Amino acid sequence: MAAQQLPGLIISDVAGRAFTVLSGSQVLGVIVPPYVQDDPRLARVYDERASDEVCRHLTHRTVRDLLPDRAHNPTDVPVVDPDATTIEAAAVMARLNSPLVAVVDEGQLIGAITVSWLLRHLLPA
Amino acid sequence: MAAQQLPGLIISDVAGRAFTVLSGSQVLGVIVPPYVQDDPRLARVYDERASDEVCRHLTHRTVRDLLPDRAHNPTDVPVVDPDATTIEAAAVMARLNSPLVAVVDEGQLIGAITVSWLLRHLLPA
Repeated sequence: MAAQQLPGLIISDVAGRAFTVLSGSQVLGVIVPPYVQDDPRLARVYDERASDEVCRHLTHRTVRDLLPDRAHNPTDVPVVDPDATTIEAAAVMARLNSPLVAVVDEGQLIGAITVSWLLRHLLPA
Repeated sequence: MAAQQLPGLIISDVAGRAFTVLSGSQVLGVIVPPYVQDDPRLARVYDERASDEVCRHLTHRTVRDLLPDRAHNPTDVPVVDPDATTIEAAAVMARLNSPLVAVVDEGQLIGAITVSWLLRHLLPA
């Protein structure tokens, strides 16, 4: 996400089936300690403690740990099929407040669309 | 947002004071008709109608129309001051599910931080 400036992650299983889609802010939610999320000003007070916890989280957590419970509800995952219209993809991103949608063909992940990419196609040139 | 691949918008007043911050998906939420957001598959059934409505929305709406009611609750706007730590900025984005934060110094907008930019600084090289 950092190197390629991606707005989020799509997590798939070994067979390439999309499992869930996480926005960048959801990924941050996994690495920032909960007590700091509840009151961000605590990061300043407990700066060293907060940084240590983030490093500990990063060292010991795997992508599997990023999977939220919501992955079990398919309608809460921003996914469209290859026949979806541009407006449909935009509607899915708007409804789920997601910066990207996965494009999945019969369970197989075939691509992703970001908000800025979609806007480039939606708007008149 | 399309041309510069920005993850959202910061709307400020004429004095340069940050007024609100909108994620890309919130901007899509303004241009996609509500009935399509409720059931994105309707975009396919009513494709022409949906596209017409989007064009109408785009033609007649201004940035002012993008402002949500939540702008009136300052704690719901992703803003940090220049002394905020990286972790604090991450916590604000995580809590508000925002792909960016505005950096505001005594009411004056001085910059913005995106998730991918923050991750580049947060993670060990």
